[in-house]
Amino acid sequence: MRVRRAPDVVIRRLPLYLRVLENIDIDKHGPSISSYELGDAAGVTPDQVRKDLSLFGEFGKQGVGYEIDTLRQELRRVLNLDCVIRVAIIGAGSLGIALARYLQGRRRAESNYHLDMVAVFDKDPAKIGLEIDGVRVLPMELLKSKVRELGVRMAVVAVPAASAQEVVDACVDAGIDGILNFAPAKLAVPSHVRLHNSDLSLELMHLAYYLCGAPGENTRTARDSQAEG
Amino acid sequence: MRVRRAPDVVIRRLPLYLRVLENIDIDKHGPSISSYELGDAAGVTPDQVRKDLSLFGEFGKQGVGYEIDTLRQELRRVLNLDCVIRVAIIGAGSLGIALARYLQGRRRAESNYHLDMVAVFDKDPAKIGLEIDGVRVLPMELLKSKVRELGVRMAVVAVPAASAQEVVDACVDAGIDGILNFAPAKLAVPSHVRLHNSDLSLELMHLAYYLCGAPGENTRTARDSQAEG
Repeated sequence: MRVRRAPDVVIRRLPLYLRVLENIDIDKHGPSISSYELGDAAGVTPDQVRKDLSLFGEFGKQGVGYEIDTLRQELRRVLNLDCVIRVAIIGAGSLGIALARYLQGRRRAESNYHLDMVAVFDKDPAKIGLEIDGVRVLPMELLKSKVRELGVRMAVVAVPAASAQEVVDACVDAGIDGILNFAPAKLAVPSHVRLHNSDLSLELMHLAYYLCGAPGENTRTARDSQAEG
Repeated sequence: MRVRRAPDVVIRRLPLYLRVLENIDIDKHGPSISSYELGDAAGVTPDQVRKDLSLFGEFGKQGVGYEIDTLRQELRRVLNLDCVIRVAIIGAGSLGIALARYLQGRRRAESNYHLDMVAVFDKDPAKIGLEIDGVRVLPMELLKSKVRELGVRMAVVAVPAASAQEVVDACVDAGIDGILNFAPAKLAVPSHVRLHNSDLSLELMHLAYYLCGAPGENTRTARDSQAEG
């Protein structure tokens, strides 16, 4: 059932679908959902929903739609979210702390939240031992042993650009194979490790493209379509 | 020269190219760059570089490459970054503060940084007047007048999901036409406003797809390719 090489643009939409499905109370809603309803809630056309999901199997029934519970389970399985994934944050600066608090808050608010932020690491002795929402900041020297002990699978890197490669190397060495990097730097990882980058500057530069002209200028036209994700 | 409907996947790569070009010292490097070199630094194939840039005009010369200064100016123009864009942050919680600090730090570090974070807003009276890296937190009631006074074009929304729609409505009412939303909520905006969403949970769920199996499981294969952006 699992398709090894589904395009990444499709993979990016699966969490959106899953989030919609997980917010549905089946007792109130009924057991099925149409591609129209799912698409509308996820901000995607019904056609796209059907195409995306057909890559992973035959879930939909003509005239009935998708069985919510089955699709939910299948998407969790495809996304490796059928068990909780333990996450570590590297860097207890203002961004690292904000991200740690965010993940703790989401987990408290949602009983079926898949991500468990279990550790924060920093190399600054002044930060070791600080508590962020119940999780203590640990020294980088403990990264490898704690990753094993706690079963950490993913790392969120929130350190300055100059230290990012060194930190990513340490994560790889500790056996982490999924890294979300917030540092504005181009980083190298071995081919078995997946590295995604999230860069606020690039996001804002991307958004700037869609700005209308300055008041009175009028040489540029805003685009209608909305992007998600 | 400007193509109105370049695909959004192409637009997403333009800031990567621009960032590479802006980090080049022409005196040391020489005036031209090949699609190989540009692609390598941006994490994109040379072919993709040539295809992407050809959408915006004839910049490259066979055997010579792109003239860095011309391409830099053109990309700034295409991305609306030929003048500084003023940005406001809505929400002075831990995420809003971290984002504000990040933008201030980047602007201090890079003389040609295009984004100027000029105001932070919050509705909590306890936060009004706080100073974040030299920028004071203002009450939401002042949003409309300050946006005009300061010439704010974009807003970064970092408030809880439950207040996000209300905040986005206020931004639209204040005349902002580009919004980057961090709240995990589906928001509605009029068609002339561009809304992008950034959701750490969705990013991590997307990344989870690429995790290898648990130790010893071995039913899943990591993907080789790296994603950027």
